[in-house]
Amino acid sequence: MHLVSDKTLENALKETSELVDDTLKDLLPELDRGSVGEKRLAEAMHYSVLSAGKRLRPFLVVKSADLFGVSRSSSLQTAAAIELIHAYSLIHDDLPALDDDDMRRGKPSCHKQFDEATAILAGDALLTLAFEVVSHPSTHESNSVRAELCRSIAEACGIRGMIGGQMTDIISEDRKLHIEEITRLQRMKTGALFAISCEAGAILGKAAPPMRKALRAYAYDVGLSFQITDDLLDAESGDSELWSTERQNKSIDKGTYVSALGADKAKRQAEILSAQAQEHLKTFGKQADLLNELARFVVERKK
Amino acid sequence: MHLVSDKTLENALKETSELVDDTLKDLLPELDRGSVGEKRLAEAMHYSVLSAGKRLRPFLVVKSADLFGVSRSSSLQTAAAIELIHAYSLIHDDLPALDDDDMRRGKPSCHKQFDEATAILAGDALLTLAFEVVSHPSTHESNSVRAELCRSIAEACGIRGMIGGQMTDIISEDRKLHIEEITRLQRMKTGALFAISCEAGAILGKAAPPMRKALRAYAYDVGLSFQITDDLLDAESGDSELWSTERQNKSIDKGTYVSALGADKAKRQAEILSAQAQEHLKTFGKQADLLNELARFVVERKK
Repeated sequence: MHLVSDKTLENALKETSELVDDTLKDLLPELDRGSVGEKRLAEAMHYSVLSAGKRLRPFLVVKSADLFGVSRSSSLQTAAAIELIHAYSLIHDDLPALDDDDMRRGKPSCHKQFDEATAILAGDALLTLAFEVVSHPSTHESNSVRAELCRSIAEACGIRGMIGGQMTDIISEDRKLHIEEITRLQRMKTGALFAISCEAGAILGKAAPPMRKALRAYAYDVGLSFQITDDLLDAESGDSELWSTERQNKSIDKGTYVSALGADKAKRQAEILSAQAQEHLKTFGKQADLLNELARFVVERKK
Repeated sequence: MHLVSDKTLENALKETSELVDDTLKDLLPELDRGSVGEKRLAEAMHYSVLSAGKRLRPFLVVKSADLFGVSRSSSLQTAAAIELIHAYSLIHDDLPALDDDDMRRGKPSCHKQFDEATAILAGDALLTLAFEVVSHPSTHESNSVRAELCRSIAEACGIRGMIGGQMTDIISEDRKLHIEEITRLQRMKTGALFAISCEAGAILGKAAPPMRKALRAYAYDVGLSFQITDDLLDAESGDSELWSTERQNKSIDKGTYVSALGADKAKRQAEILSAQAQEHLKTFGKQADLLNELARFVVERKK
């Protein structure tokens, strides 16, 4: 049975990924327009966004939105905006002053392919474009939906979310963290963008607050179990390129779940979180099958 | 008569500046909350935003909004958001990979006071916070106004506006630009944020399109005459700290109006733009006195 559902999930991931890529190509700035600076920026934005990511966050947006019958064009534009933000965060994270990663998704990172100035500004431009996309009337006909999308995405990506998590991660590089600190760090750095991906679907569908809350809780648990599994696979294989280098954790002993809990306990924790994630979606019944499969896949994957 | 109006303008600038600073203090994240990373980020954000700027862009927001009877709380929140964006752009512009400026507004620039990683992430956090502020219900009761503010601010700050201008500026450092290129560059790098500052007032006031267009045209001309005067004063004095180091143009021969036109023609051009700016506001009559005075002040200032 798992084989069948894995196949279904794989197909669904592939289908969404292709649709999101088409949407991203429409939204990214034209390559041959404007000044030398605009052309260079556009090139760097295309380079970083249109690389081989799994589009996991866009998948969460689209499948959450499907629960509420949201139109595909609305969910894809929103999904693309979230992916723009993910791409910006990776570009800035890879910079020499931060994680100093030369490679990303199997090719040179943005600042290696271009230069640091271009990478900093391309990241800025992608974040800015994300807000232009979600606030644009073509994303949703309701002004209140678009305003709420902007507000909640900004909150998720700000100091109390993704950026705060990145800053804490950088600062904490030299010391071993407690399990509570790791959990808080990962909830901010990874969990917040996972959570807003699912919530965005609920916002687009004008879902009742308990539905939105359930999806948010699901996404945080999936994000955390995804992270723990990453740490486990890192520790087992020494291979830092997981899921198309979704995350490059170079210092295994830093502040990971495995170093804090040991491999067995960490694995058990990932499984508990995966089960918990699926529990949150009970209210949606069979409609949430794909999201449940994703929660299972995230801990069962071997790479 | 100029003395009197200069005094009036000076008082108005000071008053708005104080109100905007109070609003910024309310909006910036608390200093003592969260993880070590959040605290460090908050500190860097406060440091960069609450320095001695003239708050020229917030002034444009508030005085444009006043033309349409917008509530002070709406215009101040929006003005503060624009200032957050201005602060973010200065932080990233000062980075070693870009302009490599050690000083800003008379004190060490963000990356010198903290470090590069903190400066990059603090800039990101300020940009993100700006969108959180403008999309927040407390900024304006109308969803359509908030959504339109987000969209148009994002457009002004993106690849076809401020960031595109910054990229072109960086790329062009080694070559002399034509006057058309300089004008386009400055319209993007400086003009776009000036223009959206005035437009934001019109959006908040649900102004008719011709009014919004007039304010936009005014702001572009003021921005350009401001820039030319900066170049002139730079060339005359060799002093790069103008208007509390509003702009540090380190390479005078790069691509400035003065180098392209000569000082006399550049000065004449600034005066023409200032007069043209005021012409655009004729439709507002005496209500626009302060904005007209600002257009005069921008070219008549001696520092």
